[in-house]
Amino acid sequence: MEKLRKFVDSSAFQNTILVVIILNSILLGLQTSPAVMSSFGGVLNILDTVCLGIFIVEMLLKMVAYKFIGYFKSAWNWFDFVIIITSLLSGLAVLSSVRILRVFRVFRSLKGLRGFKMISSLKPLQVIIAAIGRSIPGISWTALLLMIIYYIFSIIGVTQFGETFPDWFGDIPKAMYTLFQVMTLESWSMGISRPVMEEFSYAWAYFVPFVLISSFVMMNVVVGIVVNAISEVAEFNKKEEHEESGTADIKAEIDAVREHLAKLEDMLAKNEK
Amino acid sequence: MEKLRKFVDSSAFQNTILVVIILNSILLGLQTSPAVMSSFGGVLNILDTVCLGIFIVEMLLKMVAYKFIGYFKSAWNWFDFVIIITSLLSGLAVLSSVRILRVFRVFRSLKGLRGFKMISSLKPLQVIIAAIGRSIPGISWTALLLMIIYYIFSIIGVTQFGETFPDWFGDIPKAMYTLFQVMTLESWSMGISRPVMEEFSYAWAYFVPFVLISSFVMMNVVVGIVVNAISEVAEFNKKEEHEESGTADIKAEIDAVREHLAKLEDMLAKNEK
Amino acid sequence: MEKLRKFVDSSAFQNTILVVIILNSILLGLQTSPAVMSSFGGVLNILDTVCLGIFIVEMLLKMVAYKFIGYFKSAWNWFDFVIIITSLLSGLAVLSSVRILRVFRVFRSLKGLRGFKMISSLKPLQVIIAAIGRSIPGISWTALLLMIIYYIFSIIGVTQFGETFPDWFGDIPKAMYTLFQVMTLESWSMGISRPVMEEFSYAWAYFVPFVLISSFVMMNVVVGIVVNAISEVAEFNKKEEHEESGTADIKAEIDAVREHLAKLEDMLAKNEK
Amino acid sequence: MEKLRKFVDSSAFQNTILVVIILNSILLGLQTSPAVMSSFGGVLNILDTVCLGIFIVEMLLKMVAYKFIGYFKSAWNWFDFVIIITSLLSGLAVLSSVRILRVFRVFRSLKGLRGFKMISSLKPLQVIIAAIGRSIPGISWTALLLMIIYYIFSIIGVTQFGETFPDWFGDIPKAMYTLFQVMTLESWSMGISRPVMEEFSYAWAYFVPFVLISSFVMMNVVVGIVVNAISEVAEFNKKEEHEESGTADIKAEIDAVREHLAKLEDMLAKNEK
Repeated sequence: MEKLRKFVDSSAFQNTILVVIILNSILLGLQTSPAVMSSFGGVLNILDTVCLGIFIVEMLLKMVAYKFIGYFKSAWNWFDFVIIITSLLSGLAVLSSVRILRVFRVFRSLKGLRGFKMISSLKPLQVIIAAIGRSIPGISWTALLLMIIYYIFSIIGVTQFGETFPDWFGDIPKAMYTLFQVMTLESWSMGISRPVMEEFSYAWAYFVPFVLISSFVMMNVVVGIVVNAISEVAEFNKKEEHEESGTADIKAEIDAVREHLAKLEDMLAKNEK
Repeated sequence: MEKLRKFVDSSAFQNTILVVIILNSILLGLQTSPAVMSSFGGVLNILDTVCLGIFIVEMLLKMVAYKFIGYFKSAWNWFDFVIIITSLLSGLAVLSSVRILRVFRVFRSLKGLRGFKMISSLKPLQVIIAAIGRSIPGISWTALLLMIIYYIFSIIGVTQFGETFPDWFGDIPKAMYTLFQVMTLESWSMGISRPVMEEFSYAWAYFVPFVLISSFVMMNVVVGIVVNAISEVAEFNKKEEHEESGTADIKAEIDAVREHLAKLEDMLAKNEK
Repeated sequence: MEKLRKFVDSSAFQNTILVVIILNSILLGLQTSPAVMSSFGGVLNILDTVCLGIFIVEMLLKMVAYKFIGYFKSAWNWFDFVIIITSLLSGLAVLSSVRILRVFRVFRSLKGLRGFKMISSLKPLQVIIAAIGRSIPGISWTALLLMIIYYIFSIIGVTQFGETFPDWFGDIPKAMYTLFQVMTLESWSMGISRPVMEEFSYAWAYFVPFVLISSFVMMNVVVGIVVNAISEVAEFNKKEEHEESGTADIKAEIDAVREHLAKLEDMLAKNEK
Repeated sequence: MEKLRKFVDSSAFQNTILVVIILNSILLGLQTSPAVMSSFGGVLNILDTVCLGIFIVEMLLKMVAYKFIGYFKSAWNWFDFVIIITSLLSGLAVLSSVRILRVFRVFRSLKGLRGFKMISSLKPLQVIIAAIGRSIPGISWTALLLMIIYYIFSIIGVTQFGETFPDWFGDIPKAMYTLFQVMTLESWSMGISRPVMEEFSYAWAYFVPFVLISSFVMMNVVVGIVVNAISEVAEFNKKEEHEESGTADIKAEIDAVREHLAKLEDMLAKNEK
């Protein structure tokens, strides 16, 4: 058991798996080409199944090594587990030719994300990533704000333009998609706003404020993240420098002064006697 | 009276109202669907009126609890008041089938913004929001600058291109809308500038500088807000850390040194006698 | 003379001129409307000439008050002078019906920029504006870099695509305009790159690197300005706080300690005798 | 040899070469114009060959001056060397009329980049550039992340939309190009997503997440660079100010106090005797 755990955690084993992940990703890419598939389809499908088999063996080994419950304590393992389950399900889907489900096989290349464990060892980088990560919940209120803005504008859009432009404002989901497009500023004027204005001349009073409001909210998100990240990094730097700062030196010197004084006092006390 | 005020300010009462706001927002969404309206239109309209009734009762209760004048001291109450008045007006409008006015009913879901009072209790977040808020008046000069730029460019646009391209530069409001589109970089070249350049080959000297100037002004706005927010947050952090900083410690130590010295002086003074 | 200078510098006189500037700007806007011009064209033209007359009188008064040479020491006065000269020239142009030159009259509304002297009195704002201003020469190297990039890419574009797409890459100025459009990301792919790729399948190797390089350079410009502005504002804050900082206090306290010590020394010296 | 090195490093020689570089760049531009080429084609080609000859002589002189091996110790010299080799190769290509290879001649104007050595002498600018440069490897992990995201989304795109939209999602390189276009937000909705959604109504679940994820990753890149650059500049400023800061002063004063005390001690020691 202990031996198995050591084997599973060894860098040799992990690098082998990483190589299999990369090979599997290349396989997935090759399988998209009809030309390649017509010549080597059989071989590729077998290799794909072999890769999936290796991943299943890896998972089972880890499960045994960590006594099943311990396996599910790591988020990465959960991640692997879900990918393998969806791969198996999509494998069934291939048999039954439901094309959409085949997509889930692709997520196996997400296992490549584990490569980040190696990269994310740089100290200053970690601080910045952590700062950005921590600032996300702090700005989640903007998500709520954006939701309310989207909801109000999509209701207005459906009520006003829904009948004339059913493709863009036919119902609330369609209006929300259109508003998302407007927020990214893609063809908002020539593609959407100008045609609408030809029917409803007041439509600029709908699109221009939406562009301004959504841009302002998004700008706040970016500014919030930048400011948060900077102040966190500054805090981190401050803590690190605390020991090497002048303050500690000054305290040491003042302590020396006090020792001196204590000595003087002793001398005077003796003098008095 | 005191009792009523306590009741109105209780979190149970406020949460009930929040639930009604959310229900009312969902209602407004459902009412946009013709399919839903044809089957449940009557029920939805009644529920909508019930929600409005609850909001009116809430407003009246608060007015009584805060003796009418006290009610209008809160910006949120003004906000509610305006929304209810416009809702009532748009209710009349529904009867008279003026479709545009129906829009104002939607603003009732803006009452959901009151949910922010709860979210905005996070301390660092508050500092950043406040910093962004305070930096807005500081950058309002850019609004004036943009206005002058827009005005000059739209007068030039109308004078030069107005006759040939009446849709884009027919009058000053149309030219301003076109310039706003150009500022967002949406189809500025393929949609607007290239067709204009086919008639007026020098038109690039109008559009390219406008793109550069407006982008530069907008960049200044973003930089100004970022810099302002960062320096305000830095100030805030500094004040908070002041007590725990080394400076206070050093002063305390120097005070100890001075006490020591005073003691020595006393001893010497006795010695002299 | 002294009296005239006081009159010219009085806020009453300056505000009057500001009102005339605003009236003149509105006039310029009204003159763009054919409907207004056909009914009130004569009156508006007269008022326009009156405004120009007032500006000329203002300029002459200031010239006399500051003895002509003193007048040209202020950049604002130069600004006024150039605007009035171009206005007079464009006035002649109106007679000779050269439409393009009429544009210069519009720049008279730029006199409204003088309003900034009043706004720009806010202290923190001034620091930020000054910081952004000072960072512009520092990033002017990116302008040179962009020029070289534009030049190389436009030569490649003309050589490769010039014959097939004369509108976009016919000569170097046309290619530069197209590259500017690509840099703003406007229709770069659907409008330019995809049609070119249909003729020259390798064209993506031209457009994608250009998009990446130009975006990276522009990002550097923004980052450079932000970082510069922040460090300048931080410097400014530091200087201002210097007097109120703990360091000065600590020095004062140490001085007190030294005085104490000097006193002790004196006492000991007396003791010795 | 020493003399030759002095001559090669003299600013007179370097400025002459810079002039030749600029002349050569202008030549390259003129050669793109068929009108100019038909009249002065022969002269321009001769001048172009002369410029290339000067560059070759410059390279040879430097090689002799630095004893060949020393020449290749500078990155700038490698740069020159590669440009001259590609120029000679493209010269052969002109003879054989392979148009694409002629492009490499243009890179000779990249020699103008050497002008940066002169500009980059500003101290604060250097710090910012260095900071941005150093932050690039730190954010290279986002390049890997983007690659994985692009790869997964392009496999999904090819599998799902490849047959129906061969131009956009025919194979993985085409899908990657399309995704790059979507990331730049160019015509992502009106040009790509809406046509796809007409065939596959669920396509929004492919494009909207991709837009959100890729925007978020790019935002992280920008925030990371800004934060990194700011903290590096702050560090730099701190080091520079260290000597002039109050801390050093305070230490000096405390040293004075200790000297005083040492003197007192001596006096007391004498007293005791």
